[in-house]
Amino acid sequence: MKQKEIKIPEATIKRLSTYINCLERLDAEGFQVVSSELLGESCQVSPAQIRKDLSYFGEFGVRGVGYGTKNLAEQIKKILGLDKIWPTVLVGVGHLGHALLNFTFFREHGYRMVAAFDNDPGKIGREVTTDVIIHPIEKLVEITREERAAIGIITVPASSAQETADRLVEGGVKGILNFAPNKVKVPENVTIRNVSIVSELDNLAYLLSKKHGRRRLTRKKTISRPPKL
Amino acid sequence: MKQKEIKIPEATIKRLSTYINCLERLDAEGFQVVSSELLGESCQVSPAQIRKDLSYFGEFGVRGVGYGTKNLAEQIKKILGLDKIWPTVLVGVGHLGHALLNFTFFREHGYRMVAAFDNDPGKIGREVTTDVIIHPIEKLVEITREERAAIGIITVPASSAQETADRLVEGGVKGILNFAPNKVKVPENVTIRNVSIVSELDNLAYLLSKKHGRRRLTRKKTISRPPKL
Repeated sequence: MKQKEIKIPEATIKRLSTYINCLERLDAEGFQVVSSELLGESCQVSPAQIRKDLSYFGEFGVRGVGYGTKNLAEQIKKILGLDKIWPTVLVGVGHLGHALLNFTFFREHGYRMVAAFDNDPGKIGREVTTDVIIHPIEKLVEITREERAAIGIITVPASSAQETADRLVEGGVKGILNFAPNKVKVPENVTIRNVSIVSELDNLAYLLSKKHGRRRLTRKKTISRPPKL
Repeated sequence: MKQKEIKIPEATIKRLSTYINCLERLDAEGFQVVSSELLGESCQVSPAQIRKDLSYFGEFGVRGVGYGTKNLAEQIKKILGLDKIWPTVLVGVGHLGHALLNFTFFREHGYRMVAAFDNDPGKIGREVTTDVIIHPIEKLVEITREERAAIGIITVPASSAQETADRLVEGGVKGILNFAPNKVKVPENVTIRNVSIVSELDNLAYLLSKKHGRRRLTRKKTISRPPKL
């Protein structure tokens, strides 16, 4: 498989990630071979799109037969760098942090949560999962280094996001996934991705406004807005 | 302000959403007027990109002066349809559901959580926030209709995602934000957006693999993979 030196669209990378989930589900259902039609049906993506996404990386299936289900999942994992373990730390064990630490898909995709950090003394020492203990935030740099964590996940409030990013960088991570609502700055050798959940909802609101018109969907703010708490 | 009939890039809509947060923070810090440079610095977006994003929707600032901070935030909210209240329900009050129900940005952007649903009898009747009570899943259609909810958020496990979507559609929502890892089908008059958190992390892993090479960043799975639980 020869990887071409062209820029792969981000949307393709995201779809490849979902193809893994679909392929593993189809494999569990007993499909040893899948066509792009079946995979597309399962993933809600057109078969042509699947073929195009895969074509960036080489030839995978057998014409008229399909793709080996397990094999294609493995190939895609290799493309995304998920054929190895990614030691990962998480900072900020609120509800979102908890949700992510317990997210089984992370483990299945090769992320190994090695430590979690919080500044609430009541949480320190608690086991979130069987593998992960909550450490005090003061130990972030030290433990991140010891565990040779490559990825840091930020789920702290906006006000501590930049400081958290700085410490993760000091601890040696090469990539950060930031869920805090404000963006953070990192040195050039560190890759950052910001996940804005409210932006996803805003995007939906925008699409709905355009599609249905606002009047019938929403209420005037002045009438029904609840008091600010 | 005349809205042009051209397709606005999704990335623009996402950035508009973050501009709101940055503008509100700048406003709180006392900046009544902001330049695209200051806004760009605050949002980690280039000033040229900001001007381009806004240019899709008309003229906002005053050349050589800048944008009125409050005014621009309001204008962007109007563009995105956030100048009205969006009654919203959430299904599946696990850690992620809890995190979203408590997410203050949702309220600030005009989403009003009107009800939450779960199938765990131990959770029914509990108040998640002062406004939101957890109802049994059997009441989803009825309450969603009563509350005239326009948006449904799905934070249930993969296995119940499609059934949940069907009930939300029956309850009359026009848009669904789906956090379950599998995609769901909805009728054409309903807009769906799938948020895949693992895809965001996979995208980061892919970027890191390309940038740093895999060897130095990760460990062989065969050696250090923890036993599957």
